[in-house]
Amino acid sequence: MHHELYMKRCLQLAENGLGTTYPNPLVGSVIVHKDTIIGEGWHRKSGEPHAEVNAVRSVKDQSLLKNSTLYVNLEPCSHFGKTPPCSDLIVSLGIPEVVIGTMDPHEKVAGKGIERLRAAGVKVTVGVLEQECLALNKRFFTFHNQQRPYVILKWAESADGFIAPLHKETPQPVWISGEVSRQLVHKWRSEEQSILVGTQTVIDDNPRLNVRDWAGNNQPIRLVIDKSGRIPARSHIFDNQQPTVVFSGKSVSSGEENIIFERLDFDQDTVPKLVKALYSRGIQSVIVEGGRQTLQSFIDAGLWDEARIFVGGASLKQGISAPTLHRENATRYSVGHDELLILSKP
Amino acid sequence: MHHELYMKRCLQLAENGLGTTYPNPLVGSVIVHKDTIIGEGWHRKSGEPHAEVNAVRSVKDQSLLKNSTLYVNLEPCSHFGKTPPCSDLIVSLGIPEVVIGTMDPHEKVAGKGIERLRAAGVKVTVGVLEQECLALNKRFFTFHNQQRPYVILKWAESADGFIAPLHKETPQPVWISGEVSRQLVHKWRSEEQSILVGTQTVIDDNPRLNVRDWAGNNQPIRLVIDKSGRIPARSHIFDNQQPTVVFSGKSVSSGEENIIFERLDFDQDTVPKLVKALYSRGIQSVIVEGGRQTLQSFIDAGLWDEARIFVGGASLKQGISAPTLHRENATRYSVGHDELLILSKP
Repeated sequence: MHHELYMKRCLQLAENGLGTTYPNPLVGSVIVHKDTIIGEGWHRKSGEPHAEVNAVRSVKDQSLLKNSTLYVNLEPCSHFGKTPPCSDLIVSLGIPEVVIGTMDPHEKVAGKGIERLRAAGVKVTVGVLEQECLALNKRFFTFHNQQRPYVILKWAESADGFIAPLHKETPQPVWISGEVSRQLVHKWRSEEQSILVGTQTVIDDNPRLNVRDWAGNNQPIRLVIDKSGRIPARSHIFDNQQPTVVFSGKSVSSGEENIIFERLDFDQDTVPKLVKALYSRGIQSVIVEGGRQTLQSFIDAGLWDEARIFVGGASLKQGISAPTLHRENATRYSVGHDELLILSKP
Repeated sequence: MHHELYMKRCLQLAENGLGTTYPNPLVGSVIVHKDTIIGEGWHRKSGEPHAEVNAVRSVKDQSLLKNSTLYVNLEPCSHFGKTPPCSDLIVSLGIPEVVIGTMDPHEKVAGKGIERLRAAGVKVTVGVLEQECLALNKRFFTFHNQQRPYVILKWAESADGFIAPLHKETPQPVWISGEVSRQLVHKWRSEEQSILVGTQTVIDDNPRLNVRDWAGNNQPIRLVIDKSGRIPARSHIFDNQQPTVVFSGKSVSSGEENIIFERLDFDQDTVPKLVKALYSRGIQSVIVEGGRQTLQSFIDAGLWDEARIFVGGASLKQGISAPTLHRENATRYSVGHDELLILSKP
């Protein structure tokens, strides 16, 4: 049995949809006949066919389906959408065996797809590479099970632990990490549903918070904190080019279709309130890109899932210290001339 | 104030989407400036823009929005979809007043849209023509609040109360109602998400259960009961032209993508089980078109919302009696040469 091998392929396929399937999960599917893959598919976009449908359609000789096994990382659905439910499609086509990575936490599916398959006599195996399947859809599962978005913290620090110089003359970013790292950050932006920075970062760096150095046109929703309205009106984040939410201490109206001001109570527990607001807006993931205060407030509130830290080669001697975070368990990578540390919240 | 007048127009507009918006509700929106309608829109299809977006886009002179009132029969959404949330769009554009028919029962919205509008200083009125707005989305509300589809019973009976002759030689329907009534039935089919008939009706009449005599290509999901597998394989319902679910007492595989067999336990309480199965498939409405036994079982289970009964002019003398149902409170209409009785469940 090569269940794990084929499930790995499902995960590979599923990941192609990262950034384009929101609010749907990442799903890949593989159809195997006599130890040969005869069909593959993944879910590309909300409203388009599910992975199983794409996999079935890709099979040239449909008569082989009756002696094949379908692999899929997430439980097949049981409700009517653009096409009949996937669990019924599998039954209708006479596919005798299905191997599933994880169950679907979505109340409309939750076990019903598996139930339907078994009731129809299909042999069902659940839980192959379950941890990997849960990890793949960490955003979707965190959103539905914890009622909050998946939170990724990201910063770049100098060899001596500073994320920026102390005083800056012009609102231009000082590059601590190298070009390859910066390109990777653009890839990351294209994968998340939203990107967040604090007030000072907008004032100091005037970032665009968009995806430029990566293929595709997958732009995250921009989220900005601006308690007292200190962000200049000419900032790039107000260019109306991407949906942008500004969390403000007062009620403001923007006059621009893509720019939303949301009033937030900044008295205490700001991060939990912010995260709750994102949930109620249906936002499944956020990458927090600074600055120090914003990053530290997520760390202090315990509301983060993953930290991605670039460490550059140069020293700044003095500056704004990097956020405080235990890094004993970091996995370390080389990216260009930088070191990348990836940490999961313990 | 002409709140009711403009809300009526919202209802008219919303109804244009009947049959095409599933699983979304019917929503219409009107924008009024100095007692003149300057914009209108409705939600056409799941995945396409919401009514408010269409209404706003239809306004030629966008500068008038700042002095206009937006009317909408259902609470504006507060989560990100293809476009920013409608409640935020209203705020961003500076529309100072919103009049809403009913709140949205959907957990993701439920009051949050109204909250957002009010927090931003928009004047919000809720509950204008509330009963009419609830009635318009009776399918959506029944599905979400009662966890079952909205059930419409439909039959045609002779002047002396028979729905069919006793014995039939050929599987051809005997027309009790006239042509105009039959066309109206096709319109009704195009409006519901699914259509159900019992075993005997398929055997006797071999119906197609599709929409032929009405414009558009809105075909309902066909639902058929066939406890013991008595329905001939060559029946029209097996033509694979529409998604079709056959509720069967045993597990069967169809081999056709559009034909689904679902095993149902027929021991007792069949109708509640059936209705629960439809809910878990995401089916928001069903029109039950026969036969006598099937219709009566819905009536006896108390699981129906509306009955539509045609009474033709001719007498059959003998035959299969119409279902038993108190009709004192029926509203009566003339349709061609037939009488149409419409009853709501008390």
